[in-house]
Amino acid sequence: MTLYFDNAATSFPKPDSVYDAMNHYNRALGVAVGRGHHRAAGEVNSRIERCRQLAAQLFNIPNQKQIIFTFNGTDSLNLALRGVLRPGDHVITSVMEHNSVLRTVKDLEEHSGVEVSWLSADETGLIQIEKLKAAFRPNTRLVALIHASNVTGTLQPVEEACSLTKERGALFLLDAAQTAGQVPIDIASLPIDFLACPGHKGLLGPLGTGLLYINPEITEQVTSLRTGGTGTNSEEATQPTACPEKYESGNHNAPGLLGLTAGLEFLKERTIADIRKHETELMQQLQDGLLELPGLTVYGPHSPSARTGVLSLNLENFDPQDLSVVLDETFEIQTRSGYHCAPGAHQVIGSFERGGTLRLSPGPFTTSNDIETVVAAFREITSP
Amino acid sequence: MTLYFDNAATSFPKPDSVYDAMNHYNRALGVAVGRGHHRAAGEVNSRIERCRQLAAQLFNIPNQKQIIFTFNGTDSLNLALRGVLRPGDHVITSVMEHNSVLRTVKDLEEHSGVEVSWLSADETGLIQIEKLKAAFRPNTRLVALIHASNVTGTLQPVEEACSLTKERGALFLLDAAQTAGQVPIDIASLPIDFLACPGHKGLLGPLGTGLLYINPEITEQVTSLRTGGTGTNSEEATQPTACPEKYESGNHNAPGLLGLTAGLEFLKERTIADIRKHETELMQQLQDGLLELPGLTVYGPHSPSARTGVLSLNLENFDPQDLSVVLDETFEIQTRSGYHCAPGAHQVIGSFERGGTLRLSPGPFTTSNDIETVVAAFREITSP
Repeated sequence: MTLYFDNAATSFPKPDSVYDAMNHYNRALGVAVGRGHHRAAGEVNSRIERCRQLAAQLFNIPNQKQIIFTFNGTDSLNLALRGVLRPGDHVITSVMEHNSVLRTVKDLEEHSGVEVSWLSADETGLIQIEKLKAAFRPNTRLVALIHASNVTGTLQPVEEACSLTKERGALFLLDAAQTAGQVPIDIASLPIDFLACPGHKGLLGPLGTGLLYINPEITEQVTSLRTGGTGTNSEEATQPTACPEKYESGNHNAPGLLGLTAGLEFLKERTIADIRKHETELMQQLQDGLLELPGLTVYGPHSPSARTGVLSLNLENFDPQDLSVVLDETFEIQTRSGYHCAPGAHQVIGSFERGGTLRLSPGPFTTSNDIETVVAAFREITSP
Repeated sequence: MTLYFDNAATSFPKPDSVYDAMNHYNRALGVAVGRGHHRAAGEVNSRIERCRQLAAQLFNIPNQKQIIFTFNGTDSLNLALRGVLRPGDHVITSVMEHNSVLRTVKDLEEHSGVEVSWLSADETGLIQIEKLKAAFRPNTRLVALIHASNVTGTLQPVEEACSLTKERGALFLLDAAQTAGQVPIDIASLPIDFLACPGHKGLLGPLGTGLLYINPEITEQVTSLRTGGTGTNSEEATQPTACPEKYESGNHNAPGLLGLTAGLEFLKERTIADIRKHETELMQQLQDGLLELPGLTVYGPHSPSARTGVLSLNLENFDPQDLSVVLDETFEIQTRSGYHCAPGAHQVIGSFERGGTLRLSPGPFTTSNDIETVVAAFREITSP
């Protein structure tokens, strides 16, 4: 049986209830969201609002209308970054960011007169708060940080970073692509201004979904990436100004959002605490198994409490992509190799010249036996 | 049995093969597009490229890489409009546009220094080429027109409009939300610069999908709405400049695109000509049945060859939304009422003060019997 170890790209499998919800929508409902006056439309609309409510509960967000449905994590991040940064603004971010932030911030620097400071990281991928402190300028508008690296799994000190940012009067954007649904995030204790994440990774919804939370105090300052029909105030030729309609133009991905609703229901039942505990145990087992093998370099922090369920490695004399092919073809283990859309992280950990890393990312349905199978495969590959 | 008459919002039912493709992807494949080095990723990638190829064939587009996958029609239109219009540019559009164009152009006028001219329309929703001729200015950069109104079904004279626009050296954007998959569109005879459409209406794919064709000669001039990871050139911190990667950042809606592939396969088999013939016959039958009833106002052109499968009406002494509720609750016919995100169209046809219209839009699986059921329902409602 094939083992899927690429949950950091998209989670698989999802709970069966996710597939069932999509299939039921497709075959039995089929209507667009917020666009009809009949009972099937009512059922779909209430499931969509349930999705918003569950997402709000998950992050302890008081007003669920501040949660915007997007189409992936990149869409959420572009909405936030392009929505709030203006010519002359200064943004602080880090070399550990994913290309969704990295390329967007570079594009804004090149074409929109935005100034950028890049925080460096130590060899485990960790940024330093002292460097953040030193990076603020009078025109610093935003600090944008990835909660945990998608290459090394390194959890960043986001509580300290957020609190420092608020003290300095700037806004804080958390890229939770690798942590939403896997690590507890509570807006009450982490008063961020933007929380961006895909719906199809830790939240266990399907591809084609994403979320962006926007602090209600700054909605007026954030323009929308898209304008158009919202199914509301449809007689008006100007965009609505209230959340979420201001940012949700065009038809929703209805089957995707109904799947995401089921994913969030599953998470509520199982709890993030349980998933975090499960992944921490699996990562401990995986590291213990791999660290003793010859020729393997395992990147990132070695304490599972300092990381998420993402592990990058390289094997002596092996191109990471060739290693992925061996794992797939000989051992039926699906992994991902290369730069993982985060070139800066590879410069930090020293894997850039090697063509990146091979990445292993278990999920909530991965078992201890699966980890043993992976470790056994590496034992075989590395045996003389 | 419930009859769905809101195909102009999203088509339903879709071919079973669309649901099967999504379900198969969800349960058996599950991987992200272009992001893994294993065989399941290969299967998904080749289905996605098949989708691009089928879309290119449908519109006779020579280079399939010029087809960008977006998330809905509004996303496609925002990419085109925001991607090409710069401060000081002049755009010509019409009062018949959907809010996706209308609100976006107004937003660009208000916040980005774009000049806008609005073409009026006659009482059937038709624009006049003479007025387009008169609207050009030296700085006219773009003409953006909806191929057929989503309120009245009126087909616009887009061949003449496009040819005139090219003569004047401007770009032409076709909003094919109501015609792609329903009316033949051939880029060879209609040399447009942008073709925008959702994947979930006439193309019979699921919600959460959209397409934008960009003329290869202008790719350099069109910026992207989103930047970020593309799964390609992942070692580079700058956005790729080639199509489609330049515009496709972030994870694709894989289940949605695999569903769309199945929808496009279905269309290829059945042919657009056959669907057009079928819808024309149904619209003739629907109009013949409705026009004889007392108190009904039927909007738009009365010749089925001058319209698509969208019919707006109002009944004396009835609010359109109340009429929708009666049709749903008493006759199990699902319709949509209101402004349909196109306020200008209602001013043109005189239904603005009435709260819009009730809209009937059959689809490729609607039968002549279904039309008779709808006409019989109206006969009963209008009988003294």
